Amino acid sequence: MEVTNKFIAIKATIDGEPQECDFELKVEPFSLAVKPGSKDVIIKNIYVSIDPYQLNRMKSVSSSKKTSKFAPRIAPGEVIGAYGVGKVVASGNPEFEKDDYVVGIISWGEYSISQGFMGCWLSKLDPMGFPLSYHVGLLGFSGLTAYAGFFEICKPKKGEKVFVSAASGSVGNLVSQYAKNLGCYVVGSAGSPYKVKLLKEKFGFDGAFNYKEETDLDSTLEKYFPEGIDIYFDNVGGVMLEAAISNMNSYGRVALCGVISEYTDVGKRAAPNMLNVVYKRIMIQGFLGGDYMHLFPEFVSTTVDHIRAGKMHVLEDISIGLESVPSAFVGLFRGYNVGKKIVRVSNDLEDC
Amino acid sequence: MEVTNKFIAIKATIDGEPQECDFELKVEPFSLAVKPGSKDVIIKNIYVSIDPYQLNRMKSVSSSKKTSKFAPRIAPGEVIGAYGVGKVVASGNPEFEKDDYVVGIISWGEYSISQGFMGCWLSKLDPMGFPLSYHVGLLGFSGLTAYAGFFEICKPKKGEKVFVSAASGSVGNLVSQYAKNLGCYVVGSAGSPYKVKLLKEKFGFDGAFNYKEETDLDSTLEKYFPEGIDIYFDNVGGVMLEAAISNMNSYGRVALCGVISEYTDVGKRAAPNMLNVVYKRIMIQGFLGGDYMHLFPEFVSTTVDHIRAGKMHVLEDISIGLESVPSAFVGLFRGYNVGKKIVRVSNDLEDC
Repeated sequence: MEVTNKFIAIKATIDGEPQECDFELKVEPFSLAVKPGSKDVIIKNIYVSIDPYQLNRMKSVSSSKKTSKFAPRIAPGEVIGAYGVGKVVASGNPEFEKDDYVVGIISWGEYSISQGFMGCWLSKLDPMGFPLSYHVGLLGFSGLTAYAGFFEICKPKKGEKVFVSAASGSVGNLVSQYAKNLGCYVVGSAGSPYKVKLLKEKFGFDGAFNYKEETDLDSTLEKYFPEGIDIYFDNVGGVMLEAAISNMNSYGRVALCGVISEYTDVGKRAAPNMLNVVYKRIMIQGFLGGDYMHLFPEFVSTTVDHIRAGKMHVLEDISIGLESVPSAFVGLFRGYNVGKKIVRVSNDLEDC
Repeated sequence: MEVTNKFIAIKATIDGEPQECDFELKVEPFSLAVKPGSKDVIIKNIYVSIDPYQLNRMKSVSSSKKTSKFAPRIAPGEVIGAYGVGKVVASGNPEFEKDDYVVGIISWGEYSISQGFMGCWLSKLDPMGFPLSYHVGLLGFSGLTAYAGFFEICKPKKGEKVFVSAASGSVGNLVSQYAKNLGCYVVGSAGSPYKVKLLKEKFGFDGAFNYKEETDLDSTLEKYFPEGIDIYFDNVGGVMLEAAISNMNSYGRVALCGVISEYTDVGKRAAPNMLNVVYKRIMIQGFLGGDYMHLFPEFVSTTVDHIRAGKMHVLEDISIGLESVPSAFVGLFRGYNVGKKIVRVSNDLEDC
């Protein structure tokens, strides 16, 4: 059976801050039948993840030499692979059956085929009684990234002082909750008074500030961390990283998860005081959640326990309809999202 | 018995590149007798180490907040504590006897008392048949720093590609030799044609270049490392660190030992591409040799084996006479030293 498949593509490569007009909605014929003999899985997409790193795949020049195959380039006009949850329409793969829920790399479109995207990673999903959207963020890749980055890289101890930037964002918010549950002192930065209020009142942060209102981040951090910072979970890079290094304690650890402030303007690159890094024996570790797939079962089990005990809360920001993908995406770079940004691309309400 | 003690002091705090005229030779009366009841150890200094980090102790403002007690400030006119080898003249401490050789924190002077400098670290020294100067560099703190930084932080594997900056310097030179002995591919940078020739011909580097002759360090490193850099042992910081990060492979490790290019000019701070650090999961770890004292026996044993097997060579640059300390020190920042910079402050040739 052939249908049409709507999907979002870029019109041309994007350098600088993305605009909605950089994207287009395309329509192509799409077969819902598996080619005889293939192991394709045909998926009806339900929820797709909207993540800042995708911008680096849209640039005209690769942002670095000698990177691994992570985040291959996106060509104009092509389907864009993205993390999400969907339902199997047809399968040539014995591991999947029609009507199974799946999670993994699908696409910014109505339908996808589980081949050709970032190693084709796809798994059967047991929703465990939670809304499917939870499995895109909190119980999905954002959650794993937060869990692995915080526990494996930062090696936190109870009582340590933790700073999280973009703390109302998809990963930062979860790191902060893991840190609070462990008994750390947690301060976060965000980009609006509303977000700051949310962090303090809903999530019980020990402190939170709006970085846009601060003129001297070094002094700001000194005020919030009179005893210094032990762990910095960095999602933004730039001047915030410099200020955090300046305020770190000896043996401090920086988990470098993302540098969103540098994605659209390389002039903002952080130039931290490296003498500080030497004298304070600071470790700065870049990482990708995908390297920690072996922790997925442990991460899900721990996180589900926290949720069921009322000790972790979901912060989702869901837009409806495939057409909202471009605005959802460009909004990430303007700080419009509050929590995990997700687009529901299916109109079928029973699958939500 | 009272003698005079000559020592080198700073006239005022030093900001920017140090000059010989920033220093003065002072003469003060000095008692060779231990105060009754005290545990002082009176030492006749023989060799003292000349190290770039001392400059950071001479600045008018501390180079960082929240640093540990490492490298306390040096006041104008005061005795300057420094690593070195000496001979006990008198001791109130039962661990030391007259005529024992000792290694640890002594001073840029003729005599010192083993109290009041950087935790008073001092040990009895068994020269093991080696010249005493070896115990200041190769078998001393420079050696431990190279050993711990390379093996503990970089976790090298045979065949890995290693880049060392300031590769003819006290620590860099030793890191390179450990790396060659392990079977790594090793390229070093240095600041003169003579040093480059030495690295290639005497030390058997796989490659070496004069950074002053290179206009685009990124391309230079790409040429020397067509397969990318796995380990960067950084002694300089600045633009070299940026170029190294750009050329690193995934899971690359940077041991940040010193940032000499930034000591005299903070405008030279490195602004590495942090997106590279994330995507390539690079680890940048600042460290101090002093944290690895527990490795001292293992380090000495391994290094002595290498020396006796002719697989490690000493590269020392020894000036004679206390009066040469200022020129030896300022020369570090102009690249005048070739290998470990040491000053022999004793005229007593039998103790050399």
